[in-house]
Amino acid sequence: MYRDNPLTNISWHDFQKLTPEQKGPYFLREDRPYHVLTAQQFSRPMLERICDLTTKIRLIGKTKGGIHFLQDLLSEKRAMLYFVQPSTRTFLSFYAACQILGIAPAEVRDTTTSSEVKGESPEDTVRTFSSYFDLIIMRHPVGGFAERIAWLLSNTNRPIPLLNAGSGKDQHPTQALLDIYTLQRSFESHGGIERKRIAFVGDLGRGRTVRSLATLLLLYPGVRQYFVAPKELQIGDDIIAAIEKAGMEYEVCDDFEQVVPEVDAIYMTRIQDEWDASHESRLTDSNRFHFTAKHLAMLKPDAVLLHPLPRRKEIDVEVDSDPRAIYWRQVRNGMWVRAALMLTIFDRGVEIDRYYEDLVS
Amino acid sequence: MYRDNPLTNISWHDFQKLTPEQKGPYFLREDRPYHVLTAQQFSRPMLERICDLTTKIRLIGKTKGGIHFLQDLLSEKRAMLYFVQPSTRTFLSFYAACQILGIAPAEVRDTTTSSEVKGESPEDTVRTFSSYFDLIIMRHPVGGFAERIAWLLSNTNRPIPLLNAGSGKDQHPTQALLDIYTLQRSFESHGGIERKRIAFVGDLGRGRTVRSLATLLLLYPGVRQYFVAPKELQIGDDIIAAIEKAGMEYEVCDDFEQVVPEVDAIYMTRIQDEWDASHESRLTDSNRFHFTAKHLAMLKPDAVLLHPLPRRKEIDVEVDSDPRAIYWRQVRNGMWVRAALMLTIFDRGVEIDRYYEDLVS
Amino acid sequence: MYRDNPLTNISWHDFQKLTPEQKGPYFLREDRPYHVLTAQQFSRPMLERICDLTTKIRLIGKTKGGIHFLQDLLSEKRAMLYFVQPSTRTFLSFYAACQILGIAPAEVRDTTTSSEVKGESPEDTVRTFSSYFDLIIMRHPVGGFAERIAWLLSNTNRPIPLLNAGSGKDQHPTQALLDIYTLQRSFESHGGIERKRIAFVGDLGRGRTVRSLATLLLLYPGVRQYFVAPKELQIGDDIIAAIEKAGMEYEVCDDFEQVVPEVDAIYMTRIQDEWDASHESRLTDSNRFHFTAKHLAMLKPDAVLLHPLPRRKEIDVEVDSDPRAIYWRQVRNGMWVRAALMLTIFDRGVEIDRYYEDLVS
Repeated sequence: MYRDNPLTNISWHDFQKLTPEQKGPYFLREDRPYHVLTAQQFSRPMLERICDLTTKIRLIGKTKGGIHFLQDLLSEKRAMLYFVQPSTRTFLSFYAACQILGIAPAEVRDTTTSSEVKGESPEDTVRTFSSYFDLIIMRHPVGGFAERIAWLLSNTNRPIPLLNAGSGKDQHPTQALLDIYTLQRSFESHGGIERKRIAFVGDLGRGRTVRSLATLLLLYPGVRQYFVAPKELQIGDDIIAAIEKAGMEYEVCDDFEQVVPEVDAIYMTRIQDEWDASHESRLTDSNRFHFTAKHLAMLKPDAVLLHPLPRRKEIDVEVDSDPRAIYWRQVRNGMWVRAALMLTIFDRGVEIDRYYEDLVS
Repeated sequence: MYRDNPLTNISWHDFQKLTPEQKGPYFLREDRPYHVLTAQQFSRPMLERICDLTTKIRLIGKTKGGIHFLQDLLSEKRAMLYFVQPSTRTFLSFYAACQILGIAPAEVRDTTTSSEVKGESPEDTVRTFSSYFDLIIMRHPVGGFAERIAWLLSNTNRPIPLLNAGSGKDQHPTQALLDIYTLQRSFESHGGIERKRIAFVGDLGRGRTVRSLATLLLLYPGVRQYFVAPKELQIGDDIIAAIEKAGMEYEVCDDFEQVVPEVDAIYMTRIQDEWDASHESRLTDSNRFHFTAKHLAMLKPDAVLLHPLPRRKEIDVEVDSDPRAIYWRQVRNGMWVRAALMLTIFDRGVEIDRYYEDLVS
Repeated sequence: MYRDNPLTNISWHDFQKLTPEQKGPYFLREDRPYHVLTAQQFSRPMLERICDLTTKIRLIGKTKGGIHFLQDLLSEKRAMLYFVQPSTRTFLSFYAACQILGIAPAEVRDTTTSSEVKGESPEDTVRTFSSYFDLIIMRHPVGGFAERIAWLLSNTNRPIPLLNAGSGKDQHPTQALLDIYTLQRSFESHGGIERKRIAFVGDLGRGRTVRSLATLLLLYPGVRQYFVAPKELQIGDDIIAAIEKAGMEYEVCDDFEQVVPEVDAIYMTRIQDEWDASHESRLTDSNRFHFTAKHLAMLKPDAVLLHPLPRRKEIDVEVDSDPRAIYWRQVRNGMWVRAALMLTIFDRGVEIDRYYEDLVS
């Protein structure tokens, strides 16, 4: 395993200078994700494979026999969930995904109970985890820290895979994967994601979720992206540049109600005021970007409404019972996608294929 | 499962107006508890069944083979323990009960590591748990919150059972169940709980434990209840009214030493000063209501001494080694009762019956 | 089990007066450790047996079949990890060791979520754990507390083994065991630990790790110990007295660079300023006791460099990649040693022997 790790063939100094696209291949092994650090590391075939596995796992998990089969798959593994930023959803869905696959989970969430209070470096702390566990799932406030650790672990005599569950402001790749899966599942019976019109609404400048998903959507020809936000919270120029470079269509605007009837999917987001430098969120009249019961009437009959959650007031609770509101299904999809991803990392997808074939034949 | 859920047939507005007795049937499925929210939802046959299962599980758990049998029973389930109030005993006994039955547990205890810091509503937080887990066990400071959630989850497309592990000042139904089991086990060889004299001592006005147990004892004909407390901490008038309505005997007094020799069971409690509005506990001379070594001499030879724990000075440590002091056994009973309850919820009691029959035959 | 417990035959009053050496036998059952509380309780044959088991478990754990075999060994047990002092390494290595053996772990780490906030005594808190679990692993700031609890539990009707994972300033016996194992493994091919020269460097007065290991090394004839530290942080007189009493060689000095080329093992330690009474650590020029790349050149080719971790600046990160730097292997050894120790406590070593024989034959 050690010899095939591309991160052993490059110095940290050189690696840092690469673009996200250039870094991608360093996180793979034989065309499968090994480390999962960025949205950019996924190719279209990888996404298709993960979606395929996710659906199979989800269906296998509907019977007691299937659950026991899944629980045996990675029962020889132990995972460390190192979450030093607040998180319920991502943490618990990874935790549950571990339990589904028989991976024994352990967690460190509160740095006041850890050795960091004794002056240990973050690198040493994570290297300690790699001494006891077979996989590290990490959410960390420092952008780039996950990449640093992936490089570092790859250059020890006990390299193990690292899953980025959110780092700094930039990357949250597993959220992007579950969003892709949710879209694909929603559009399964009418042509898939390709050529769909997808709107992002809310705080687009600071939400790493939107940035990651917008990037992955470049892999689906014909998709037209709408970015609907007040000017000060609009999507970054780098994303627009990437869309243009890919030769795809997009629209940047701030008229929410005009966009609602036009699109096949609306992806609502929360104002991320925990990243506020100087209360800029409070200056924005964000009410104009809230989805309420009246918007349901404007929405296409087969359109879908997503939200990465947690929500505040962006979507009225009344909307929840409409069948086009799929954010609660999206939450549960996250658990299945993460299970599929861990199976892929450990190259056990083929066992899922085999079980599934027996199930449906 | 969804169609048979009575909570889908009533609006939250109407449900709220019901008395605890009227609410009870809404928490059941086919005469078994599904949600466990109040003491009032239990009938005498349900209590007998849970006690019967508890004893069987306890005995099955004495052998390695039996432990492995139990660990397989609910091994396809995952439970969320959501405890946002301090708790050691209740939390750990539920946790251990899950482990005994093979249920994979996950926990959220500290709201500072959760999405609530991002402004999520408590309802959304709990609905998230229902996306990943098959059972929610919840301790919450807000009275009625557990009922609200049970109603809410029942009206989603992923209803799952909810276990109240203590809510606000009013309900702690699993504590009442373990107390009933402890009393029944103690009186097994001399006539059961019926017609026994049972005294409650200490802080009776604010302890939800006493209120729940006093209510359940109404199901046992001939029981005479004693409420021994300083006036300002006496039992609520609603409980007295319920006893009178049931036509049962009771005594309200503050002379501890007179009651000790008269009764078959003494249930000691702690002054709950965490509920103090204005330090009223400090004004009370609670020493008069402490059980010390000298009271052992006054106690009937086959009487028993209970305490829900934690204790402060209500029972002297010296008393612990007397065989009538059964509060440590009571603690352990809690683990077995909670296992029995979870098996009942998932309708697996019959497998216990079968294994037990083979064991004793 | 209860009848054979030597701690039931002595009062707490009498027990307290014993020396560590005299207390040792009270923690055993049939020459095996039952409670693990001090370094002094281990005889040389016990150490040999634990090292032997550790190696076997480590090798069995290299295959999926072996991992499943190990996971079944203690799958009927549940462990409580009660850690009320900050710890990452010790906590996680015990946690992982439990998972390796199939022991279901539960944890209490933050006393603000526990019943202690309701005024419960520490003794009652731990006795509660013993009601639900089969083993308690405990780190506690109060010296002697673990012994008190071991005595207390032994005198209830549910005695269970207690593992000291660090208590106060004095004892950290499992760290000493993993250090012994690491030394033995390092010297396996050239004569074992006996007659080796072993230097301790850094904060020797307050590090319980050094005190425990120095004591265990008295069981290995011919070992010469070096204590290299500034005067104010030198090893305690009691340890020196014990070495002299054992008739073994030692050296006390503060010239680090003179010692480096002379010894077979260097055990670096961290300045433990969390124990500072009045900032005495700041007065010390501890730079003189740091191991940097230049010292690698002075070190014997087959010498080894250890550190209990966490480290600050005592060992330069550059040193990590030298094969003589074995502190990361030492970390991982800790997990295997703790697994071996728990198997020994529950008397299951013989199953390891049998599986191992099949494996190598």
